[in-house]
Amino acid sequence: MRPYIIINAAMSADGKLSTRERRQVRISGSDDFARVDRMRAESDAILVGIGTVHADDPSLTVKSPELRSARRREGRPENPIRIVLDSHAETPLSADILVKGEGERIIVVAEDADLRKIRALGEHAMIISCGKGRVDLPCLLQKLSESGIERLMIEGGGTVIWSFLSEGLFDELNTYIGSCVIGGAMAPTLADGEGFIDESQFPRLLLQEVQRIDDGLLIRWKRKMEE
Amino acid sequence: MRPYIIINAAMSADGKLSTRERRQVRISGSDDFARVDRMRAESDAILVGIGTVHADDPSLTVKSPELRSARRREGRPENPIRIVLDSHAETPLSADILVKGEGERIIVVAEDADLRKIRALGEHAMIISCGKGRVDLPCLLQKLSESGIERLMIEGGGTVIWSFLSEGLFDELNTYIGSCVIGGAMAPTLADGEGFIDESQFPRLLLQEVQRIDDGLLIRWKRKMEE
Ligand SMILES: NC(=O)c1ccc[n+]([C@@H]2O[C@H](COP(=O)([O-])OP(=O)(O)OC[C@H]3O[C@@H](n4cnc5c(N)ncnc54)[C@H](OP(=O)(O)O)[C@@H]3O)[C@@H](O)[C@H]2O)c1
Ligand SMILES: NC(=O)c1ccc[n+]([C@@H]2O[C@H](COP(=O)([O-])OP(=O)(O)OC[C@H]3O[C@@H](n4cnc5c(N)ncnc54)[C@H](OP(=O)(O)O)[C@@H]3O)[C@@H](O)[C@H]2O)c1
Repeated sequence: MRPYIIINAAMSADGKLSTRERRQVRISGSDDFARVDRMRAESDAILVGIGTVHADDPSLTVKSPELRSARRREGRPENPIRIVLDSHAETPLSADILVKGEGERIIVVAEDADLRKIRALGEHAMIISCGKGRVDLPCLLQKLSESGIERLMIEGGGTVIWSFLSEGLFDELNTYIGSCVIGGAMAPTLADGEGFIDESQFPRLLLQEVQRIDDGLLIRWKRKMEE
Repeated sequence: MRPYIIINAAMSADGKLSTRERRQVRISGSDDFARVDRMRAESDAILVGIGTVHADDPSLTVKSPELRSARRREGRPENPIRIVLDSHAETPLSADILVKGEGERIIVVAEDADLRKIRALGEHAMIISCGKGRVDLPCLLQKLSESGIERLMIEGGGTVIWSFLSEGLFDELNTYIGSCVIGGAMAPTLADGEGFIDESQFPRLLLQEVQRIDDGLLIRWKRKMEE
């Protein structure tokens, strides 16, 4: 049992999430920001990796006041639950994700994370512990599902997206492709990590929809089930 | 003065040209192969880097008998001129690009390349020398233009494509996006090399056309001129 999982990210025309210095860059425009904001508002929870917290310090709140009040009218919190994959409990206590906006936060650590750090973070977020050394995703997804999370949005970065893709733990992959080239053998890409070497292991996708947004393109893929 | 330059490559949904082992993989299907074959037949010359020669050993010939005879009827050679960027004159004498198919070949070396290697290659290809240490592209393009090459197709890999993109030496960028994920922080991407760190330096693109081909998508960009 796991939530319905939608991966969403913006990449340059050459597949990069940001520069090799991992500084956040503007890849999309205001229409795509509004689209992502709607996706957030439709989600029960939003997940990123600790790499993204360190690099971008995102708050991951819903930005539109209308969408926030719509959520409230439905008896839901303004913001979806915000989740960080953070095996070693390194999320800074001053991170925007902990500080900004209403709503629950979950820090997901590995079982062997430092107890003192866990306790400190525990004052600002719920702590879930799954796996040794690194967060075990199936274990986490089971727990999220049990706690009522049905719709989970993954917002990056490339290492986290790779994990979800390579373990087959996704339903949709939305990539916005911006009208610029970032370049760089060392720049983060949509799916980093180890990568596959055997073609038979590549996750296969089904093209659902293509849409021009701002100066770029939104591509919506679904996971292709094995035949 | 330089030729009209079209960059063409196939990448996975996550922007990879192949696996981290740099083994050639099938990203597109037969309709896209036919499209690329037509693009080749319409070109005066096709260029790749020595990395691609080592990894894929491509012949870069026109595959369709109809397209080959059409070229002959127009008084042109069956195959476009095949060009390798190879600063140190390392192209193997047994490379398919030298051995297979009719037509001219050009190996582009740097001025300090080993003379013995140049002489050996010179029996199978024309040698052009441009730049110190690494091939200087503006110098090369000037020479190609002077020798009558008006339409140049760049077929990769990621390091060569990065050079053309980052130096603003292109008119069109065609990327076929296949319906698979390869992943890997070390896998080659559409534009490798150093990469930009400053947003103001990113090459900007104009979206021309999007087309479904096989199970994926062809995206045609043009270079956006500075305002
Ligand atoms: N363009 C976009 O849409 C977008 C969106 C988000 C981020 N970004 C960019 O992406 C870059 C950050 O990406 P990143 O790859 O460095 O970091 P990331 O994917 O955000 O986080 C990766 C880290 O998460 C932790 N983690 C815990 N369990 C994991 C698991 N099962 N699988 C994978 N990771 C797990 C690991 O660190 P521990 O082992 O220490 O826990 C891992 O190093 C930044 O440059 C940011 O700007 C871009
Ligand atoms: N999917 C596709 O459409 C596609 C197409 C082609 C290749 N590929 C893949 O791409 C990978 C190979 O890419 P790659 O990046 O390793 O090699 P590459 O781009 O084919 O060649 C790079 C090499 O070209 C030489 N070079 C000379 N002058 C240069 C210049 N001005 N700018 C850039 N390079 C110059 C350099 O070596 P020297 O300094 O030694 O000369 C450089 O290392 C392989 O995995 C292959 O399968 C995929």
